[in-house]
Amino acid sequence: MQVPRPSVREAASMYGTAVAIFLVILVAALQGSVPAESPFPYHIPLDPEGTLELSWNVSYVQETVHFQLLVREFKAGVLFGMSDRGELENADLVVLWTNGDSAYFGDAWSDPNGLIHLDSQQDYQLLQAQRTPEGLTLLFKRPFSTCDPRDYLIEDGTVHLVYGILEQPFPSLEAINTSVLQTGLQRVQLLKPNIPTPALPSDMLTMEIRAPDVLVPGQETTYWCYISELPDGFARHHIVMYEPIVTKGNEAIVHHMEIFQCAAEFDSVPRFSGPCDSKMKPDRLNYCRHVLAAWALGAKAFYYPEEAGLAFGGPGSSRFLRLEVHYHNPLKIQGRRDSSGIRLYYTATLRRFNAGIMELGLVYTPVMAVPPQEMAFVLTGYCTDKCTQMALPPSGIHIFASQLHTHLTGRKVVTVLARDGRERQIVNRDDHYSPHFQEIRMLKKVVSVHPGDVLITSCTYNTEDRTLATVGGFGILQEMCVNYVHYYPQTPLELCKSAVDTGFLQKYFHLVNRFNSEEVCTCPQASVPEQFASVPWNSFNRDVLKALYDFAPISMHCNKSSAVRFQGEWSLQPLPEIISKLEEPAPRCPASRGPSSGGPTMVSIGGGKG
Amino acid sequence: MQVPRPSVREAASMYGTAVAIFLVILVAALQGSVPAESPFPYHIPLDPEGTLELSWNVSYVQETVHFQLLVREFKAGVLFGMSDRGELENADLVVLWTNGDSAYFGDAWSDPNGLIHLDSQQDYQLLQAQRTPEGLTLLFKRPFSTCDPRDYLIEDGTVHLVYGILEQPFPSLEAINTSVLQTGLQRVQLLKPNIPTPALPSDMLTMEIRAPDVLVPGQETTYWCYISELPDGFARHHIVMYEPIVTKGNEAIVHHMEIFQCAAEFDSVPRFSGPCDSKMKPDRLNYCRHVLAAWALGAKAFYYPEEAGLAFGGPGSSRFLRLEVHYHNPLKIQGRRDSSGIRLYYTATLRRFNAGIMELGLVYTPVMAVPPQEMAFVLTGYCTDKCTQMALPPSGIHIFASQLHTHLTGRKVVTVLARDGRERQIVNRDDHYSPHFQEIRMLKKVVSVHPGDVLITSCTYNTEDRTLATVGGFGILQEMCVNYVHYYPQTPLELCKSAVDTGFLQKYFHLVNRFNSEEVCTCPQASVPEQFASVPWNSFNRDVLKALYDFAPISMHCNKSSAVRFQGEWSLQPLPEIISKLEEPAPRCPASRGPSSGGPTMVSIGGGKG
Repeated sequence: MQVPRPSVREAASMYGTAVAIFLVILVAALQGSVPAESPFPYHIPLDPEGTLELSWNVSYVQETVHFQLLVREFKAGVLFGMSDRGELENADLVVLWTNGDSAYFGDAWSDPNGLIHLDSQQDYQLLQAQRTPEGLTLLFKRPFSTCDPRDYLIEDGTVHLVYGILEQPFPSLEAINTSVLQTGLQRVQLLKPNIPTPALPSDMLTMEIRAPDVLVPGQETTYWCYISELPDGFARHHIVMYEPIVTKGNEAIVHHMEIFQCAAEFDSVPRFSGPCDSKMKPDRLNYCRHVLAAWALGAKAFYYPEEAGLAFGGPGSSRFLRLEVHYHNPLKIQGRRDSSGIRLYYTATLRRFNAGIMELGLVYTPVMAVPPQEMAFVLTGYCTDKCTQMALPPSGIHIFASQLHTHLTGRKVVTVLARDGRERQIVNRDDHYSPHFQEIRMLKKVVSVHPGDVLITSCTYNTEDRTLATVGGFGILQEMCVNYVHYYPQTPLELCKSAVDTGFLQKYFHLVNRFNSEEVCTCPQASVPEQFASVPWNSFNRDVLKALYDFAPISMHCNKSSAVRFQGEWSLQPLPEIISKLEEPAPRCPASRGPSSGGPTMVSIGGGKG
Repeated sequence: MQVPRPSVREAASMYGTAVAIFLVILVAALQGSVPAESPFPYHIPLDPEGTLELSWNVSYVQETVHFQLLVREFKAGVLFGMSDRGELENADLVVLWTNGDSAYFGDAWSDPNGLIHLDSQQDYQLLQAQRTPEGLTLLFKRPFSTCDPRDYLIEDGTVHLVYGILEQPFPSLEAINTSVLQTGLQRVQLLKPNIPTPALPSDMLTMEIRAPDVLVPGQETTYWCYISELPDGFARHHIVMYEPIVTKGNEAIVHHMEIFQCAAEFDSVPRFSGPCDSKMKPDRLNYCRHVLAAWALGAKAFYYPEEAGLAFGGPGSSRFLRLEVHYHNPLKIQGRRDSSGIRLYYTATLRRFNAGIMELGLVYTPVMAVPPQEMAFVLTGYCTDKCTQMALPPSGIHIFASQLHTHLTGRKVVTVLARDGRERQIVNRDDHYSPHFQEIRMLKKVVSVHPGDVLITSCTYNTEDRTLATVGGFGILQEMCVNYVHYYPQTPLELCKSAVDTGFLQKYFHLVNRFNSEEVCTCPQASVPEQFASVPWNSFNRDVLKALYDFAPISMHCNKSSAVRFQGEWSLQPLPEIISKLEEPAPRCPASRGPSSGGPTMVSIGGGKG
C-alpha cells in the first residue's frame, strides 16, 4: 500500500521545513504486524558514533527476526546486512536509498567485488518507515532461512552485521559505490535464547564493580584493569544474576567486561586502575583469572538457573576482584570518561547447587599444530567416556552456559555430546566465531552430561596469513581450542582435555623425513615447535598431519585442577569412536513467502533530504 | 484458471460412457504456453511394458524442461520424478493422484523412508491434462534449478528418472504407499545439447547393421553379438552420421547398441550371432573392439561435425564388424523377436578431417586402488602439458563428443581442461554417472585443446559393498577411469593417461608397515594387489593413500597406440600444478516463480477410472 506524499517543496510551503523534516511518516507495506508487548528487547549501536542503532526480537515459532533500525541524521540512505565474517563483499543486504526524487527499499546482495545487486527474491520485508524526532526508523523482518542462495542463513552464535551510511543519492542500487561510504561491522548474537527469566531470591543484594571514572585513552584498543575488594569478612554467597552497567553515551565504546577473582594464596593484592598492559601494573594481577562474570556487547543480564549459584566470598577464596574493561575506540575519541562495570546480584541464602566451570577442548601444548596457509584446518579435543565415568556424579551434570575460546586464527568452534558412539546433541556451536567476540552464552537448552558420555570440541583455524606452523600454547600467536562450560552441580573435574600422543607425532616427523626427498631436520632431539617449523608444507605433509590427528591415540588431561589428575592411565588412549554423526539440519524454507516480486518497494520517508 | 467440468455422471448421461472416457479434457492451468513447433523432440519409455512414455524438450533460454507424460490405461494416478541414483527415497516427485472423487496434481518429495510429502514450494507446473485414445497425457514444466533444497537439480549428464503407477485411489498424498506400487527407474540424458544439425553430403549412402531377427532370450540381461561384413573391396569412406533402428514394440527392451570394427590383422572373422558370453562364441570376436558407433536408450542420431568424419573401409582396416545389442528384459518376456541395429550414413567424398578417439584418464594398473567401504573415493588421471606439447598439432584438436567409462563402482566422472595452471573448462561431466548407462554424448560446446594444455579426468567410486581394496585393471571387479574423447583432426596420440609412481606407492606400503603396531605383510616382494589386500583399512591408511595420490609423482602413458610411447621421459613426472579451480556454478534461481501456493492443483481428468 502506497500513500502519496507531498513533495518536499509542497510540504515546505505548507508547514515550513522543520515540520516537514520531523513529519511522522508513512506505513510502506504493513503486511505483518508488529508484536504488541515491548517489541524489541535487544539493542546495539552499529557504528562507533551511534548514528545507527539496531533493535530486534526473535520469534522461534515463526523463525523470523524483526529488526528496527534507527538512522539518526538520515541523509540519503542506509545499507544494513550480514556476511560471513563482517566483510562488505558477498554480503546479504537490505538497502534504503534515494535517487533524489524517491526512496526505495530492497533486499540486495553484494558480489565478491562489493558491487550491490537487487535480489531476485525479496526476503527482507519492510513493515514500516517512520520519521521521529530521533531520526528515521525502519521496521522490517526476515526469516532465519530463506532458501535463497544469495541470502545469509541466520544461525546460532555470532552474526557479523555490516552497515553503510549513504550521504548522497544514487541513481540506482547498482550505482552505490561502497568504497566512498562510511561502512563497518558489528558482531552480535542475533538469535538470543528464549529462556524464561529465573525467579530471584527475595533477600537479594547487589554490588557494583565499576571502573572508577576512567579517562578512556584516545587509542583504538584499551584493556582497562581495576582492582576492587570484597568487604572484610564477606561470607560465602551465591551470585544469582549479573548485568552490565554501561555509562550513558559510551554504548559503542564499551566492548566487553569481565570480573575475575584473584588467587586465594595471596593475602592482599595491590590496588590498581590502569591499562592492563601498563608497565606499572603489579605482577600479582596476573593471578586474578578465576572468572566471576563476563559480559560482551549486545548481551543482556546473565541469570543462573534457579537451583544454582556461583559461590564467592567466604573462607578459601580471595577478597580481591579484578575488573577488566575492553574499550574499543576506533575513532580515537579523546577525553571520554567512563564508569562502566557489572552489577552482581547475590544472596546469602545459598542455592541448592554450586555452579562450576569446566574446560573442554585441547591441552595447551605445541603437539597440536596448524600448518600455515590453511583456510579451514580443524583441531579436535576430547573429553573421553573414561574421564566422565570417573569424575561425574551418577546423576550427571547440567551445562547451562558456554564460552568459546581460541586465539587469533580461530574461525569456528563447536562442542558435540556423544553417547554410546553416537553424536547426540550440540552443546554449543559458532560457525562465525570471532576471537574478538567471546561472550558467555546461555544455552537454548540445558545439556545433561552423564558418566560415560564423550564431549568433542573442534576448532577451525585460518592461517592464511602465517608462514610457519601455528602450534598450541599460551602465547597470543599460538593457539587454543577451549569451551568453558558453566554447569551444576559443581564437581572436582576442572579440565577434560586432550592432545595427540607425542610418540605418534614423532612417527609423523619420521615419515616426513623419509617421504620427502630433501632431508629436513625434523629430528627428535629438536623441540616440537622446531620440528613443526622445519616441515616442508606440501600437500602430503598437510594431509598426513590431518590423518594423524584423526587417527593417533591421545593423551588425556582429566584433572581436578590444572595440575592434579584423576587417578588412572591417561596416555595412549584410543580416540572415541563415533559411529553416527549428527545430521546437518536442512534449512527450512518458509512455507509462505513475503513479497517475492523482483523489484524494490518504493517507500515514502517524507522530508526528503531534510 | 480452472474450467468447470461436467461430472462423470452428467457426462455419461449426456454422451454415453465411451464418449466421456475419451473426451478431450481440460486445461488445468495454462500459465505457460506450449511451444508451437514439434514440441517434444525426445522420447523414452519409462517402464519395461511401455505403459508410461515420456517426451520432453529443453529450453536453455528459460532454463526449463517441458515434460509430456503419456499414461496408457490410466487407473488412479502416476508418480514421476528424479533422484540421485534412481532410488524412490529422497526423490523429487510430481504426483497425479485421485482420492475417488477428485484428481490432484502436486510437486512432492519423498523422505529417506520413501514417504511422500507435498512440497511447500510447487515448482512442477501443470500446463495441461488431457485424455486421448492413447491414454492420459500430462503436460508440465520445471526449471532446471528451483533453489528448493527438496528439489532435484537438473544437470548435464545422466538423470535417473523414477516412476510409480497408482492402481487405486489414495485418500491423500501422504497415504500413498510406494511399496505396493509398480515402480522403477530409467536413466536418460535430459539436457540434450542444443546443436544445429550439421549439413549432410548429397552423395550420402546408408548401411544398416542389424541383429538378424534375434529371438530375445527370456532373461534380464543379454549382450547379443553379431558379426557382419563390409562388401569386398569396400573403399575408405567417412561415416558422417548414424542413428538407431529399434524394432517397433521393443523400445523398452533394447538398452544400448554398439558397432565395433575388428582388428586389421585378421583376414577373416568367423560369422556369429549369439549371446556374447556364449561358449560357442569364437575367440576372435574379442579382437573386435574399435568403436565405430554407439547408441544408448534415449539418444537420437549422432552427427559428426561438418568438417570431419570417421574413416572406415579401405586398406589397413578390417572388413569385419561386430554389432553388440544389450537387451534389458527385466520382465523376462519370452518369444520376443528383434532386428534392431544401427544405420550408418557415410560418404565416399572424404571430409577435410579424420575424426579420432583418444583415451584420457587412468592407466589400467593395480597401483591405482580404492579402499573398501568408501562412499565417494576419487581417483584422478592426468594428460600432462608435456604430452600435449609433444603430440598435438600447433592449431590444437577439437573435442566434440565424449564417452565416460568406469566399471561397477563408478559414480561420477569429470574431465577438466587446464591451461597455465588454471582450470578453464569442463570437457564432460556426469555427477550421476552410472556404469549401466554409457553413451557417446555430443558436447554442448566443442572444446579445443592446444599443445601444453592439461586434461584432468577424475572418477568417484563407491565401494561400500566391497571388503577388499578395488584395484585398477581390466576385470569387471577391478576399476577403470576413462574418458573416450571424439575429436578432430586425428593425431597419432591415442592414449594420454597416468598412474601413481610405483616407487612412491612402495613408500606408502612401508609407511603402513611402520605406522601400524601390528606388523602386516605389505612387503615389496608381494604383488601390488596382494599388498593392497593386506592393508588394514583404518582411517589413517585411507587418508594417507588419498594424500599420496594427491601428491606423489606420476608415470605417464603418452602413447601412439597402446604399446608405442612418444619419445621422452615419462616416469616420475610431477603432478600438474593447479593454482585456480573452476568455480562451482551457483544454481540460478528462477526470478519469477510458478504458482508457489502450498497446495496441490485440482485437476479435471474426466472419465474417472475409465
